[in-house]
Amino acid sequence: MRDVAIIGVGCTEFGELWDRSFRDIFVEAGVAAIEDSNLQGGKIDALYVGNMSGGRFIEQEHIGSLIADYSGLAGFHVPSTRVEAACASGGLALRQGIIAVASGYHDIVIAGGAEKMTDVDVETTTDALAAAADREWEGVMGATFPGLYAMIARLHMHKYGTTSEQLASVAVKNHHHGTMNPKAQFQNEISIDAVLNSVMVADPLHVFDCSPISDGAAAVVLAPAEIAKKFTDTPIYIKASAQASGTLSLHDRPDITTIDATVAAANRAYKMAKVTPKDIDFAEVHDCFTIAEICAIEDMGFVKKGEGGKATMDGMTAIGGKIPINTSGGLKACGHPVGATGVKQAVEMVLQLRGEAGKRQIDGAEIGLTHNVGGSGGTAVIHIFGR
Amino acid sequence: MRDVAIIGVGCTEFGELWDRSFRDIFVEAGVAAIEDSNLQGGKIDALYVGNMSGGRFIEQEHIGSLIADYSGLAGFHVPSTRVEAACASGGLALRQGIIAVASGYHDIVIAGGAEKMTDVDVETTTDALAAAADREWEGVMGATFPGLYAMIARLHMHKYGTTSEQLASVAVKNHHHGTMNPKAQFQNEISIDAVLNSVMVADPLHVFDCSPISDGAAAVVLAPAEIAKKFTDTPIYIKASAQASGTLSLHDRPDITTIDATVAAANRAYKMAKVTPKDIDFAEVHDCFTIAEICAIEDMGFVKKGEGGKATMDGMTAIGGKIPINTSGGLKACGHPVGATGVKQAVEMVLQLRGEAGKRQIDGAEIGLTHNVGGSGGTAVIHIFGR
Repeated sequence: MRDVAIIGVGCTEFGELWDRSFRDIFVEAGVAAIEDSNLQGGKIDALYVGNMSGGRFIEQEHIGSLIADYSGLAGFHVPSTRVEAACASGGLALRQGIIAVASGYHDIVIAGGAEKMTDVDVETTTDALAAAADREWEGVMGATFPGLYAMIARLHMHKYGTTSEQLASVAVKNHHHGTMNPKAQFQNEISIDAVLNSVMVADPLHVFDCSPISDGAAAVVLAPAEIAKKFTDTPIYIKASAQASGTLSLHDRPDITTIDATVAAANRAYKMAKVTPKDIDFAEVHDCFTIAEICAIEDMGFVKKGEGGKATMDGMTAIGGKIPINTSGGLKACGHPVGATGVKQAVEMVLQLRGEAGKRQIDGAEIGLTHNVGGSGGTAVIHIFGR
Repeated sequence: MRDVAIIGVGCTEFGELWDRSFRDIFVEAGVAAIEDSNLQGGKIDALYVGNMSGGRFIEQEHIGSLIADYSGLAGFHVPSTRVEAACASGGLALRQGIIAVASGYHDIVIAGGAEKMTDVDVETTTDALAAAADREWEGVMGATFPGLYAMIARLHMHKYGTTSEQLASVAVKNHHHGTMNPKAQFQNEISIDAVLNSVMVADPLHVFDCSPISDGAAAVVLAPAEIAKKFTDTPIYIKASAQASGTLSLHDRPDITTIDATVAAANRAYKMAKVTPKDIDFAEVHDCFTIAEICAIEDMGFVKKGEGGKATMDGMTAIGGKIPINTSGGLKACGHPVGATGVKQAVEMVLQLRGEAGKRQIDGAEIGLTHNVGGSGGTAVIHIFGR
């Protein structure tokens, strides 16, 4: 198995990009990544793209072919494959790209993700997103994602004494990080009071506990580690790629405050990278709701179970804290175009590890981790990156 | 790169399976494949599943998690990944599974495909399928797939003198093959007159020139070639896996009677397997319409360009002919549950190469080929198999 490195990255701004189509945004991200890696298009051996629901959002499937075509790579007949695992689609596209390079089937591979969510009405969006949950057991009962994560939050409060203020502190921190990211959908500070006074979506989750609906695209260029320095002085190496499944339905899990797919994927990733949670200097985790970040940092062992809310409130996960989490602003403030998120997390890793993260740069980071979740935890994918 | 073998196969019957859900059919195919490979579920390292449009057909995305869950593998946290490339989704799932084993990331991998197309009204199905074409340049103009392939047929007739009778002979042959396949959707003979007198869908394509709308699922179990004989006395080896992209739109191609993605993928596959078209003993090709089979056998070099219709009429591609094509009945008679088709083609390879194809068994076949196309040729994936 060959080692793999990232030699270039690109990302659009995230937000309500009403002036740009799906085609525009993935080309923008892909071209930026190709330029960043000092490559030309004809050198690309394969494409992988994460996209959750082109069929519902833009009435377009066959996204791989579309992307090869509109990137100008159909003339080279470059293989292009769409991967879908709901909100983990981007993370899985990255993983398939890594496996393709590791296998020797391909050398230079672009792994990207894109989603255009704001061109349909919000009811369609909500229903399309609900298709990440179990349609026959959750969807038909009226469950949508805020409701599912609200149940997780409620039990977490009951079992561990987590408070609404602690949940809100996740959003406050990630908005603060977002103020330093020019690509972020929200670049404004919010306060705990603002979160607590915002509209209740699904008790105990207010609207400011929820990630937004977003458009955006991101891409990374992968190469075999042994030739990465031909393209860049600062390759970032993939130290682990791990994936795990959980039950599709929340109610089938023994303890809904633990996403067991996250635990399984983290254990595999730590083993593969030969590290422990203590070795991780910073991470991008899947904060689709504030409670999700708290569960994530607990389930991956950055804090003890039940202490995620307090740790966040105490500043442990802010830039300058012991383990900065979601320096990009996370899903909450940077935005959450579902197919793009997992790849955007990798872009943030590369920028931080190269020292190119601007105002949000953290000091001396050597090892970072990304954590991308599909649905309420039916899929978890974790990557570990190093210089 | 490790060599890869198929150690087990499973397939549901194809057809209008109104008594079974999507969940039922993929479990049926997967369990059959696991039993056929003398494995137990806990030994499965990863799942790949081809599915085109769960979001439209069953209002369910996150198909990978669903399949891991309902196959009883979520408890083992088995990674499960959905792959989509329209009607080539199954072929790409097979390819990703092969790459995963080749890479060393996983040992025992199930590659499956499933689609449940008959639980929605036919207008929804037609529109969902049209999402495999270019929505912005073809779909919005009212183009659906019969219309796109009709244009290919019309030009093929104009350039090469191909006749409606020759087109019909593809359907007649594949229906004849289907009579010998107990899993086929159509197991009845038809005549050239029956095709020519059937309802015109898009001139010159009659309804009997078109593959049907189908439910079905298929699965194969992959393992590293060096350990395949631990599981079965008759492993079937993957000699090549190749994929290519073309333009998403038909009108962007220099010659619409040639699917250039097929040509590119075939060249890559022949090179990888170190064979020429003459070495291929039999093939399953993508006959979504009768004209598609004619183009396929030309584009892959089994006959000269323009001679596919005559060769079919002359019996060259029937069982007993020089190169039997679509011994399963093909998409036309076996059926075309779009995500499953590419995997069902591989199942047919294994049955024929093992000598387990029953009444449709061909004599002495050593090397077979599968050809799976997405859309009108935006994606082509070709595999070569040997004993």
